[in-house]
Amino acid sequence: MEKQGKIFILSGPSGCGKGTVLKSAMREHPDMFLSVSATTRGPRQGEIDGVHYHFIDDDAFLKMIDRDQLLEHAGYAGNFYGTPRIPVDEALDQGRDVMLEIDVQGAQQVYAKRPDAVRIFLAPPSWSELERRLVNRGTDSADKIRQRLTRARDEMALAVDYDYFIINDDVERAAAELNDIFRVEHFKPAERMHLVKD
Amino acid sequence: MEKQGKIFILSGPSGCGKGTVLKSAMREHPDMFLSVSATTRGPRQGEIDGVHYHFIDDDAFLKMIDRDQLLEHAGYAGNFYGTPRIPVDEALDQGRDVMLEIDVQGAQQVYAKRPDAVRIFLAPPSWSELERRLVNRGTDSADKIRQRLTRARDEMALAVDYDYFIINDDVERAAAELNDIFRVEHFKPAERMHLVKD
Repeated sequence: MEKQGKIFILSGPSGCGKGTVLKSAMREHPDMFLSVSATTRGPRQGEIDGVHYHFIDDDAFLKMIDRDQLLEHAGYAGNFYGTPRIPVDEALDQGRDVMLEIDVQGAQQVYAKRPDAVRIFLAPPSWSELERRLVNRGTDSADKIRQRLTRARDEMALAVDYDYFIINDDVERAAAELNDIFRVEHFKPAERMHLVKD
Repeated sequence: MEKQGKIFILSGPSGCGKGTVLKSAMREHPDMFLSVSATTRGPRQGEIDGVHYHFIDDDAFLKMIDRDQLLEHAGYAGNFYGTPRIPVDEALDQGRDVMLEIDVQGAQQVYAKRPDAVRIFLAPPSWSELERRLVNRGTDSADKIRQRLTRARDEMALAVDYDYFIINDDVERAAAELNDIFRVEHFKPAERMHLVKD
């Protein structure tokens, strides 16, 4: 048996810094496959097909659902979003770990299909800090920010079911904790017992 | 809620190097409480009461069983051995992690009472290396070594139920993996969710 790839899920409220922490952690884990979501919404300025999203039309999306080619999916503001299954399985077969950056609802769908997935919740150090970050980002209206904060509290309530909980008060420390988790999750008997020789 | 102490169990065949790896790991984790077993056998040359074992008589041992003051116990070669519960609970209450170096059967007893205990199995790199170490130790007869090797194979078969499996091919690396586990096991939502402020 070769090294087995593992699915890691990173969830956390919008504005908690998932992208930044992940980017920092990836420097020590360059082989990890970062899943790219499929969506039916159009690309925004600067978004590249296959990098930020796989931009596909409604027909293609519905076909993926029919063919069980999505590990999770949801509708949001009139568009579909989902995690393509095939690239994930290909990476796992190659022994690569896979990272899914998805929300709590998506995580529940993936976990139902793949109970060996490791779920990590990234939280802001405080609610006021989360609000500050959303305001400073300058991309959302006051109304939108209120919506995001309400949603964040709902998501956080479900974090109790996660395997790990990381507080992003310092990007480098949070990234180091992520890497600790990636490492330790490969210390499992199923993956190592056969390595004891003769 | 303050930092919660956690029970860690280290099992592994006689001769796999549990003591050495643990001693090395403890340098980074000096606060951990190392449980001292109680036994009814007499002290051997150089063994200190309260350090190597708590040496007690049969009466005292049976009283501890009656009063539910042992987390696990077993008889071996006409003597009793067990893990006193009270010092473990006191350490946990102080927020200290606790290490129990016990065999697979003891681990099963503890886990039945404390399902939040984290079980770590330490294995030798190979069976021939284990035999070599037992022979080099020079403390056991050829017969005793054969017995230990048979027992080791029985124990290893049960390692599949453990949370973690570490191969001791290099003491420092194995100790580092132990410390990774000690750290990561405190990244749990139950212990951290309340730390998100306001």
